[in-house]
Amino acid sequence: MRQSELFTKTRKEAPKDEVSLNAQLLIKGGFIHKEMAGVYSYLPLGLRVLNKIIGVIREEMNAIGGQEVFLSSLQSKALWEKTDRWNDEKVDNWFKTKLNNDTELGLGFTHEEPLTAILTEHISSYRDLPKYIYQIQTKFRNEARAKSGVMRAREFLMKDLYSFSKSEEERKEFYDIVADAYHKIFSRVGIGEKTYMTFASGGVFSKYSHEFQTECEAGEDIIYVDEKKNIAVNKEVLTDEVLSDLGLKKDELVEKKAVEVGNIFNLGARFSESLGLTFKDEKGESRPVIMGSYGIGPGRLLGTVVESLSDDKGIIWPELIAPFQAHILFIGDSLDVRKEAERVVNELEKKGVEVLYDDRDVSAGEKFADSDLIGIPIRILISEKTLLQKKAELKSRKTNEIKLVDIESVLSKDLDVLLKL
Amino acid sequence: MRQSELFTKTRKEAPKDEVSLNAQLLIKGGFIHKEMAGVYSYLPLGLRVLNKIIGVIREEMNAIGGQEVFLSSLQSKALWEKTDRWNDEKVDNWFKTKLNNDTELGLGFTHEEPLTAILTEHISSYRDLPKYIYQIQTKFRNEARAKSGVMRAREFLMKDLYSFSKSEEERKEFYDIVADAYHKIFSRVGIGEKTYMTFASGGVFSKYSHEFQTECEAGEDIIYVDEKKNIAVNKEVLTDEVLSDLGLKKDELVEKKAVEVGNIFNLGARFSESLGLTFKDEKGESRPVIMGSYGIGPGRLLGTVVESLSDDKGIIWPELIAPFQAHILFIGDSLDVRKEAERVVNELEKKGVEVLYDDRDVSAGEKFADSDLIGIPIRILISEKTLLQKKAELKSRKTNEIKLVDIESVLSKDLDVLLKL
Repeated sequence: MRQSELFTKTRKEAPKDEVSLNAQLLIKGGFIHKEMAGVYSYLPLGLRVLNKIIGVIREEMNAIGGQEVFLSSLQSKALWEKTDRWNDEKVDNWFKTKLNNDTELGLGFTHEEPLTAILTEHISSYRDLPKYIYQIQTKFRNEARAKSGVMRAREFLMKDLYSFSKSEEERKEFYDIVADAYHKIFSRVGIGEKTYMTFASGGVFSKYSHEFQTECEAGEDIIYVDEKKNIAVNKEVLTDEVLSDLGLKKDELVEKKAVEVGNIFNLGARFSESLGLTFKDEKGESRPVIMGSYGIGPGRLLGTVVESLSDDKGIIWPELIAPFQAHILFIGDSLDVRKEAERVVNELEKKGVEVLYDDRDVSAGEKFADSDLIGIPIRILISEKTLLQKKAELKSRKTNEIKLVDIESVLSKDLDVLLKL
Repeated sequence: MRQSELFTKTRKEAPKDEVSLNAQLLIKGGFIHKEMAGVYSYLPLGLRVLNKIIGVIREEMNAIGGQEVFLSSLQSKALWEKTDRWNDEKVDNWFKTKLNNDTELGLGFTHEEPLTAILTEHISSYRDLPKYIYQIQTKFRNEARAKSGVMRAREFLMKDLYSFSKSEEERKEFYDIVADAYHKIFSRVGIGEKTYMTFASGGVFSKYSHEFQTECEAGEDIIYVDEKKNIAVNKEVLTDEVLSDLGLKKDELVEKKAVEVGNIFNLGARFSESLGLTFKDEKGESRPVIMGSYGIGPGRLLGTVVESLSDDKGIIWPELIAPFQAHILFIGDSLDVRKEAERVVNELEKKGVEVLYDDRDVSAGEKFADSDLIGIPIRILISEKTLLQKKAELKSRKTNEIKLVDIESVLSKDLDVLLKL
């Protein structure tokens, strides 16, 4: 894509009321727009990244047998009263609205209730179980504080997966499968090394829930990490009993600030009993379905990547989720240079490489600064000086390493290879 | 996919309160779930169709230079007061909600205001124009009546494209380009022959707007079609003056019931003036940006396809948007037959064909009825009788034609070819 055609422009300053680093950088780079506190719109560059993250999540959910649905945001009071989660004193972050006839409706902050209700129409026998169902859909949460940019928004996309099993053992088996899939997702989007499976408080049905916490200065959680065992404990459950349960020693743990990028909950029969989701077992006896829920917020993940991997010049996107794979720049007024840059763009695009081409008539300094801010993994620069040697200057956004490479070899090699040249 | 693994089941009856044909068939086939009047969730089969429709729309939008964004649903009062569209007396289908601190918010029923406001930060010169920006995003409309299934929902996905041009002439040029793209979209999703560009009332900025109306008994509009010229006039503007404007003769027009599947509006400077979206022209003079808007509802399109193309047995999906391309069935208890069916499934899936495989232990009659209800274009049946001849029975859902074809030739030919065998 030609940068002159992209409708967004970079800007020098983020809005004054924006205190989070992730939203500041994303706004300056033209990735998102702030509609109000906790509410952001995705502009073309941001949506490209978001869709790549969603693509990774979807692949891993399909790989473990997830079936995708897309449930409504509008929720009926009658349904949520059955599980006692309608009352604002029970759930403090509902957004509610009304039909013209004054019927109260809610905007879904999660979807256990509607999905469980749907399944009562499709599940009746042990032969129908287990089932794994997920969606990537907008949640609304009326957060009191919304100062963490896209990491804690009032409206945000969520991947919510729900498991429906015959027994606690069957649920537990799947729980481990999802944990593996989550590790793959965090690793593929570039924060695997900074993300820890973390024991947190479990609620009604089990001693612990599992959070996936990514080391991050802007995180709202404190975790204690055993770096050898690669597990962590949320500060909220750090007691001697827990340490002994998990075989951890307090003096071997490192305190870190972290952000929760995923979670896994055992729901037991909490929702299936309230909503009548039962099945007949092999003996013909009626039993409640055992459920689990598994969340990842694609937008929060995007924000976490920005917080964790940026530097003072801008964002540093991991290769797999970068808005484009290569950023091609030329400098100077030479028509030959511009023509050669366009040839490189066309050849790379023919090979299927996603290219952002800075064809704007602006200064070299502005091009360099914008390129660092936008954070595409490889910058390919052509100038009169490089062209004389039939070379292009390659710069890695991550390492800042710069190399002169023959243009023909840029065109003939994979970008992965070029990054490592 | 194996039908035994799909979590949805077909059902004999739709809910009693569901009066629309499209939702009745979609619910019976397990494509959607009715949450409440005008609010539907998409289940795996329905989401597959919806995503294919969205894919077609996205391709055509990108082909005409559209840049994709994803704006928020939550809307601020201050923004919409600037265009005088906040007041419920001006706009009668808002859903409104509140932050915990009592700040009123709206749920977007369209997005002229927020997108125009965003563009004030990115557009300043004639060099920045024209720009074409679209999204595929959930709209909320507090409809008084919601009896048309997914054709008129209170919550629904919309593809909304907005054009930002320097002049009325430039906007008009793009208007024609979008009209072409719309014809392509309706043709690709299978309702091209039944869809007419229709002149309708234009609002403030032009005499007419253009609707795309698809012939459909369940439609809420009446149009008058000139079948030779392939254009139509909405009953609401059918006057002698209009007929003379368009060079049409009343006695050559055929009255049809129709549903509006797309529309194109000239917005002039209505929003850019209220929200300060101006640009400096070549002479350095400040002028308001001239806008247009262009909508298609993917869910409404899906409902229209169902209404227009179903028969008394169920849905008849056009090939390009069918949930799967082939439905493979076996009948009888023979292990050889089942094995051969599975071989055909595996071979076709290896070739990239999307297959739904009915591996359930249910009667032949139930398999046939479900296959007709779900409406996949080709049914491939293997039975002891066909296997003896090394053949499979192919049935076209659309024409009901049945043919015996060598299994090896099923595997070696494209499905398009098989449909025409």
